[in-house]
Amino acid sequence: MQRLSINDADFDLKFRRIVEDRRESDGDVAGQVSSILRDVRSRGDAALVDMTQRFDQHSLSGDDDWSVSAEQCKAAFDDLEASLRDALQLAADRIRTYHEAQLPEDRDYTDEVGVRLGARWQAVDAAGLYVPGGRAAYPSSLLMNAIPAKVAGVERLAVATPTPKGTVNPLVLAAAHLAGVDEIWRVGGAQAVGALAYGTDRIKRVDVITGPGNAYVAEAKRQLFGVVGIDMVAGPSEILVIADGQNNPDWIAADLLSQAEHDPNAQSILITDDEGFSRQVADRIDVQAAMLSTSAVAQQSWQDHGVIVVVDTLEQSIALANELAAEHVELAVENPTPLFDGIRHAGSIFIGRYAPEAIGDYVAGPNHVLPTGRRARFSSGLSVLDFMKRSSFIELDETALNAIGPAAMALAEAEGLPAHAKSIESRLK
Amino acid sequence: MQRLSINDADFDLKFRRIVEDRRESDGDVAGQVSSILRDVRSRGDAALVDMTQRFDQHSLSGDDDWSVSAEQCKAAFDDLEASLRDALQLAADRIRTYHEAQLPEDRDYTDEVGVRLGARWQAVDAAGLYVPGGRAAYPSSLLMNAIPAKVAGVERLAVATPTPKGTVNPLVLAAAHLAGVDEIWRVGGAQAVGALAYGTDRIKRVDVITGPGNAYVAEAKRQLFGVVGIDMVAGPSEILVIADGQNNPDWIAADLLSQAEHDPNAQSILITDDEGFSRQVADRIDVQAAMLSTSAVAQQSWQDHGVIVVVDTLEQSIALANELAAEHVELAVENPTPLFDGIRHAGSIFIGRYAPEAIGDYVAGPNHVLPTGRRARFSSGLSVLDFMKRSSFIELDETALNAIGPAAMALAEAEGLPAHAKSIESRLK
Repeated sequence: MQRLSINDADFDLKFRRIVEDRRESDGDVAGQVSSILRDVRSRGDAALVDMTQRFDQHSLSGDDDWSVSAEQCKAAFDDLEASLRDALQLAADRIRTYHEAQLPEDRDYTDEVGVRLGARWQAVDAAGLYVPGGRAAYPSSLLMNAIPAKVAGVERLAVATPTPKGTVNPLVLAAAHLAGVDEIWRVGGAQAVGALAYGTDRIKRVDVITGPGNAYVAEAKRQLFGVVGIDMVAGPSEILVIADGQNNPDWIAADLLSQAEHDPNAQSILITDDEGFSRQVADRIDVQAAMLSTSAVAQQSWQDHGVIVVVDTLEQSIALANELAAEHVELAVENPTPLFDGIRHAGSIFIGRYAPEAIGDYVAGPNHVLPTGRRARFSSGLSVLDFMKRSSFIELDETALNAIGPAAMALAEAEGLPAHAKSIESRLK
Repeated sequence: MQRLSINDADFDLKFRRIVEDRRESDGDVAGQVSSILRDVRSRGDAALVDMTQRFDQHSLSGDDDWSVSAEQCKAAFDDLEASLRDALQLAADRIRTYHEAQLPEDRDYTDEVGVRLGARWQAVDAAGLYVPGGRAAYPSSLLMNAIPAKVAGVERLAVATPTPKGTVNPLVLAAAHLAGVDEIWRVGGAQAVGALAYGTDRIKRVDVITGPGNAYVAEAKRQLFGVVGIDMVAGPSEILVIADGQNNPDWIAADLLSQAEHDPNAQSILITDDEGFSRQVADRIDVQAAMLSTSAVAQQSWQDHGVIVVVDTLEQSIALANELAAEHVELAVENPTPLFDGIRHAGSIFIGRYAPEAIGDYVAGPNHVLPTGRRARFSSGLSVLDFMKRSSFIELDETALNAIGPAAMALAEAEGLPAHAKSIESRLK
């Protein structure tokens, strides 16, 4: 954990290093992913069989090895303990309600010169959703990706998820049942992303791929951007907690650890105007972290990437928060409004002392798939818009064309595009 | 030009080949671009000086060589011939009006359990706009990119445009004046995109990069996606004209040529239910093309990529149009409504006999930066949303947390994330 004070002589330099730190190892991920994608593109299902055996120790032989049926998903849902089933249902309902209000409105109007103009939104035909296996096999992620797609109106929603050594995660299947997923393919990694993008004999290609994954999955999505639509380039997760000294240090410590326990590369940052409080929080983190079943990950993240910044006034935290452009920002202060008003770059903002970030991971309603690694400067959380696209349209009659056609011709001629001008001129009176 | 009939025995195969044809040469663009970007990242302005000398024969010495001043842009605008200035002004006004209506609404409400939820849209801090030099130096493109950025509220809009042998395009400068561009940098190619994304001593980095360009520019944007936001991966342009036999063949020929004259790799496709009409159009194309100042490009595009498909009924064109997912679709038919209703995938749709595509390039209002190469399946034309991002927010009080907190804890525990559960539990009564 790094401790900074805004009054340190080298504060700007140290803070800049934190802002610029990518927390991602480069390795040769790009090269490996590119050869995996080439292989999937040329050999299709055969490449998936080989790689799934090698990476997941799972043999894709019969149909049951390739995919999970709707019946299996329903059974997994029915078999859930009642309290867990209710929790999943509450989460799904709240996520659906929030995302339904995101559906964009079409436009269709005729302007003062008689030109009909508009824009029409439609869902993509098919979406692919990557669901990690192993450490990050989260049913909540499935809900957060699948529900917006279904709300958007996507007809075919195909999930790809690795099942290492044949193990399926019943919670993920239950969530897939609840969200109305249409297909579940038992493949993972860059090869699964390639199969969804290019299509194979078994897996029909999709138009958009979303969902979290490791560095290979993220790189595969990046490389396939343009072949398909993708939600975003995701990196390690982060939280920025801005807290005054009036918080319970145990609460804030738990919030910081809730980010740290995700991933050794996750980052938790506390900005406070109360140095004594910051030391209490650090102490509570040490105590709490030791008791977690996720302590190894949480401790490593906090040790390697944790940051405490002590400022003189909370107002100073606004500029720092905008530099960090964090995925999650908590405003655990007496009067959060001025901070909320000042923060321009953040994936999601949690306002007040009773809004721990974890509530947004599950049941609040807004999407928990959010821009990481400073990308909140230019990108947004997942929404129904990621599964839709807009066609504009233009209709003119002879009168309307006579009104605006000559200006278009003048510009076309100035740009050296005579056929453009001719296509208008030949229609003019 | 290829001629197909829907009744050809091998129609499906031939049509599939047209749909899959990327019309883009692979070459080693990716490798070259990647080394250019590395060079710009490590050497900054010095790399720009070297590459601008090499590729554009332009020496970046004094400040005037590096950038164009606001005064120069204003002078270029004032020096325009009056009719051209009026045309540019009309285009800018109509583009601005159309895009202002795209501004998204924020949300802020409290739900039935007392959770305050919402989403707030804000502009990115800075946008970079690439404007090609040479063949495709179009002032209309500058307007179509810059105006949405300014409507979105972007404070700093930096244009990069090559000035080969020192030549600046006065029309582009005039458009920059009209659109309110803040900086114009006289650099081009992948190196300009790299400079905008990483920043150099002279050129501060931006958050989003949009704008058309050659294969190197497009690849640079693709590689930098994630470092910055980008609008889309653009390829060669295309038009699909669906026309019945009642059109003037001269008009339709001009429409097809207006696409062809852009680029030898552009594609013009005619679908009609009248074979005789299709032959008249083909004849008129040959006659008109020969007379164009752009004939070499237009003829090559039509020869290499032009397609005529004769169908039995216009209804059949709907499925074909959705396969093609073309950038531009014209519906030059007596009753366009059923076709318009059926088309799911298109960048922009031009309805009726008096809506040539060229009108949308300049003055209609909707954006002319549109998805190419089948990408209308999953992406949309440029809009103010490309220059904005959304932060969600969540506020709870103790009562609201008590209402939905336990469900979140159940899910966190099921996902094996105890610190998540603890951050909620410690706040519950």
